[in-house]
Amino acid sequence: MSLQEKIGRELLFFDGGMGTLLQERGLQPGELPELWNTTNPSAIIEIHKRYLDVGSDIILTNTFGANALKFHNAQISLKEVVTAAINNGKAAIASATTREAPRYLALDIGPTGKLLEPMGDLSFDRAYDVFKEVVEFGVENGVDLIHIETMSDTYEVKAAVLAAKENSDLPVFATMIFDEEGKLLTGGDVASVIALLEGLGVDALGINCGLGPAGMLPILEELQKLSSLPLVVKPNAGLPKQRGGKVYYDVEPAEFAQLMKEVVEKGGHIIGGCCGTTPEHVEAMINLCRNLPVNPVTLKEETIVSAYGKGLVFTEKPLIIGERINPTGKPKFKQALKEHNLEYILKEGLAEEEAGAHILDVNVGLPDIDEKAMMVEVVKELQGVTNLPLQIDTVDTSAMEAAMRIYNGKPLINSVNGKRSSMDSVFPLIKKYGGTVIGLTLDEDGIPETVEKRVEIAGKIIGEAAKYGIHKKDIIIDVLCMTVSAEQEGAKITLAALKEVKERFGVRTTLGVSNISFGLPGRPLVNATFYTMALQNGLSCGIINPSAKSMMDAYYAYCALMNFDENCENYIGYMSGVKEEQVSGGMTL
Amino acid sequence: MSLQEKIGRELLFFDGGMGTLLQERGLQPGELPELWNTTNPSAIIEIHKRYLDVGSDIILTNTFGANALKFHNAQISLKEVVTAAINNGKAAIASATTREAPRYLALDIGPTGKLLEPMGDLSFDRAYDVFKEVVEFGVENGVDLIHIETMSDTYEVKAAVLAAKENSDLPVFATMIFDEEGKLLTGGDVASVIALLEGLGVDALGINCGLGPAGMLPILEELQKLSSLPLVVKPNAGLPKQRGGKVYYDVEPAEFAQLMKEVVEKGGHIIGGCCGTTPEHVEAMINLCRNLPVNPVTLKEETIVSAYGKGLVFTEKPLIIGERINPTGKPKFKQALKEHNLEYILKEGLAEEEAGAHILDVNVGLPDIDEKAMMVEVVKELQGVTNLPLQIDTVDTSAMEAAMRIYNGKPLINSVNGKRSSMDSVFPLIKKYGGTVIGLTLDEDGIPETVEKRVEIAGKIIGEAAKYGIHKKDIIIDVLCMTVSAEQEGAKITLAALKEVKERFGVRTTLGVSNISFGLPGRPLVNATFYTMALQNGLSCGIINPSAKSMMDAYYAYCALMNFDENCENYIGYMSGVKEEQVSGGMTL
Ligand SMILES: [Zn+2]
Ligand SMILES: [Zn+2]
Ligand SMILES: [Zn+2]
Repeated sequence: MSLQEKIGRELLFFDGGMGTLLQERGLQPGELPELWNTTNPSAIIEIHKRYLDVGSDIILTNTFGANALKFHNAQISLKEVVTAAINNGKAAIASATTREAPRYLALDIGPTGKLLEPMGDLSFDRAYDVFKEVVEFGVENGVDLIHIETMSDTYEVKAAVLAAKENSDLPVFATMIFDEEGKLLTGGDVASVIALLEGLGVDALGINCGLGPAGMLPILEELQKLSSLPLVVKPNAGLPKQRGGKVYYDVEPAEFAQLMKEVVEKGGHIIGGCCGTTPEHVEAMINLCRNLPVNPVTLKEETIVSAYGKGLVFTEKPLIIGERINPTGKPKFKQALKEHNLEYILKEGLAEEEAGAHILDVNVGLPDIDEKAMMVEVVKELQGVTNLPLQIDTVDTSAMEAAMRIYNGKPLINSVNGKRSSMDSVFPLIKKYGGTVIGLTLDEDGIPETVEKRVEIAGKIIGEAAKYGIHKKDIIIDVLCMTVSAEQEGAKITLAALKEVKERFGVRTTLGVSNISFGLPGRPLVNATFYTMALQNGLSCGIINPSAKSMMDAYYAYCALMNFDENCENYIGYMSGVKEEQVSGGMTL
Repeated sequence: MSLQEKIGRELLFFDGGMGTLLQERGLQPGELPELWNTTNPSAIIEIHKRYLDVGSDIILTNTFGANALKFHNAQISLKEVVTAAINNGKAAIASATTREAPRYLALDIGPTGKLLEPMGDLSFDRAYDVFKEVVEFGVENGVDLIHIETMSDTYEVKAAVLAAKENSDLPVFATMIFDEEGKLLTGGDVASVIALLEGLGVDALGINCGLGPAGMLPILEELQKLSSLPLVVKPNAGLPKQRGGKVYYDVEPAEFAQLMKEVVEKGGHIIGGCCGTTPEHVEAMINLCRNLPVNPVTLKEETIVSAYGKGLVFTEKPLIIGERINPTGKPKFKQALKEHNLEYILKEGLAEEEAGAHILDVNVGLPDIDEKAMMVEVVKELQGVTNLPLQIDTVDTSAMEAAMRIYNGKPLINSVNGKRSSMDSVFPLIKKYGGTVIGLTLDEDGIPETVEKRVEIAGKIIGEAAKYGIHKKDIIIDVLCMTVSAEQEGAKITLAALKEVKERFGVRTTLGVSNISFGLPGRPLVNATFYTMALQNGLSCGIINPSAKSMMDAYYAYCALMNFDENCENYIGYMSGVKEEQVSGGMTL
């Protein structure tokens, strides 16, 4: 059984801490531990061996800080240090590996230590290059897998994972450091981490460092609820404490082992220790856990998209995708695009957020501008001012890819459709970068007039996505909505198709709602009525104008009526912000 | 096979005209034909015999004008004339009846010749008494059936049918005189006649006089489309013409027979001739038609309610029942009731009609007033000013019955429910007077909290109605709607029950929509949103306030979207009457 096959099917044991053991062996404060790979290789090999002796399946190279931003030394290059670290690991493993008990060497990649844009000044591309360099050294020297760890920023981990995946065929693990509230340093939550890392296609994800095993259990539970991947758990030996000017960790091997048993029972698949853990900790853990049954990895059906701080988990309660960042039919917006007036565009987005949008559609397509450059810029800037997930809306797949690459989180993508060319170009991007994609029920023959045919195209899109390993939870079907004044049966067909798609495939759905009323008087009324009907037929996330009062009226009233609004509190709050005479103007109850 | 069993299963042949034959035998202009029953019985018997000789199954007594309002003679009483007429008929039949060919004597009842209130000054009760008297003479003297004919007013025919049904156990036929447009003299249409007569439980209904057989064919087609009863067709021998100062009819026996063959092929079950037809016409007709196959009588599933002028046939397009004639929560309305201010009440009704209601609910229940008297009076007065069908809304079954009795048409009744006592008291009234009844899904245990139980009660109501011969097309289920601010799941349960009742039983549905929003701010918005959702879940006829702009907005928009409004014309017309800023006030599209 290859390593790849074992992940999630067998318990796999990592090693424990390296730093504490190096200090015991004389590492001075301020000294770079990675230097010992060349200055004191036997100490490194000895520590590796101790972990292998107690049964660790995977050991980490001594390369946590080995990247161009952290490691600067006049005597020795980064390449030499990484190469030495790998050779030390391999030397240790050579003696421990048997056919019955193969052992694996993981290239350890830690954070750069710098903040990425827009919070800091490290660009995403520079971060990528830094990680790429280390990955290339790892591949050249033949590691078995890449372990990205102790990450506190989803954007940085995205750069690292992309670097690992684009520059190797190795399994990739990624673990983040959470606080006791289940938040990253950047504020990111568990759902945002899962959305991002699963979207990027890592082989296992999880949590390391920062907390002891007890503190990790609630976070593990959250991970287990939403993640469909094998879970890595590598706690410290408790929380760091001071004694006589020295940092120590107070969870002893027996207690550590006991808690790690609980970790396995609660769903951990790949376990080990981080700061403060020793071969004794790992030995006790392995002895206690070796024969525990493995929690099966199960597919979770939740649709999640994310921005850097927050994963948006879809529930039965409908969501609102704001439609206003779009030049179509908006001369002012076009003007802003041409004049590179980003402030105008950001204001539109903020107004949508203020009005109650949950996701912002971003469309900057205009014949005279460089859509790709503009899209990347607008996405970056928007992510600097709003924490809402974005929907990248373009027919230009190079603009789509560029935006997906630099997007901090897991975006919505608008859109793919039933045309062969569309599926062939969009699905590989979803597969690579992660994302939830809107599938339009049209194909080479245009938009079908019948419910049956639209449902059929939806099925085709879902089926084709599956070939890429893209689950239907990441497909949101748009059955398309025609202008009812031109197509008398149009609304009925759309509503029936919506319902059928929802029922037959169990997928989420969207619609560009306001098309329906084109050419009619009183468009807000028609839009709101159709929106209400679509919601009732299973519309998961309509693309609407959240600043249109009639639409938000319908949304809040619908949610109150359908028990998506406890004690009607959101509705009542919404109404208290609306002038009563506007709502009841001209009406008699 | 009894006559009752033959109706609709075998072709039955009436006789033809009497008047023309009497004139040939010396009846003078202005002379009452009924007098001949005693002054010249042998002529009457001879004419009867001639019809029996050519094969008529049923002959009519010579009593068309024999009622207290038309027949006044110093020498002879009405009773003597009717008795003599029946005896003449029986004498003729005695010689013709055999076991193989039984012949039947029908008591002929024509109109009173007076206009009923409110158009004329004949009260409904007086008309009833006049018909009752004749029916009693018929029963005393042993006729086989009662044939009410040449009626041009649904209200008068209702009095006659009620008199026949309440004072005899005989089969009752009723035929009306239509013009070429398919309208009664009072403006009533085919649907209103069918709704009324089927509701009253006649054994056969149809058309006689006024038109020749060719002119009756289109009306027969309309009858056939909507009626579930055997159809009577008795045309004149063409249209009356003048020649040398004399009236004659120009359809000769052979042509008459040919057209009557077509009548049978198009669905006529009981055929004969009216003015101008002779034994020769009837002979030719019987010879040509005797062996034609009989069109089976089929149940029509249309729900129809009616006012005097118009039958309202339910289609898939939803209807509006106006809720405003109701004192609940309306101090002014209560005041009007107490002060017997009918003008106020009528104005409410007219305002609802103007606003677009299709049916008006009438509730005048108030502790301090005589509800029965008030209900009767309001129904009468309302029917004097509006042609909309009324919904009699009361928990007092004596008020309900009194109103049903004097109602001109087939009313909606609000309501029956799943309680034994309710079904036992309401269904007999529906059976007797006709009506479409709203069935509330509550029973002895109150209003159930679950969808399943409400659906179960709906099934019980439908099943119990069937025992009375009341078809589910005359049951409109109200699954009841609670206040969502008090019952968070209430709207969901109501909507789900509505859908399930519609799908499982295929019945029409109603709801008192505005209950839903009690206690919430912005009630018009919640009401309109819920109304839209209910419409989409199959609400056939919501009870709403048609003067509430939000509700009519929702209604017109819904109908336009669901293709119930060709080219959105009604919607556009409606919007052109609405100030645009009211609709779009505060909204950005
Ligand atoms: Zn650590
Ligand atoms: Zn006639
Ligand atoms: Zn006649």
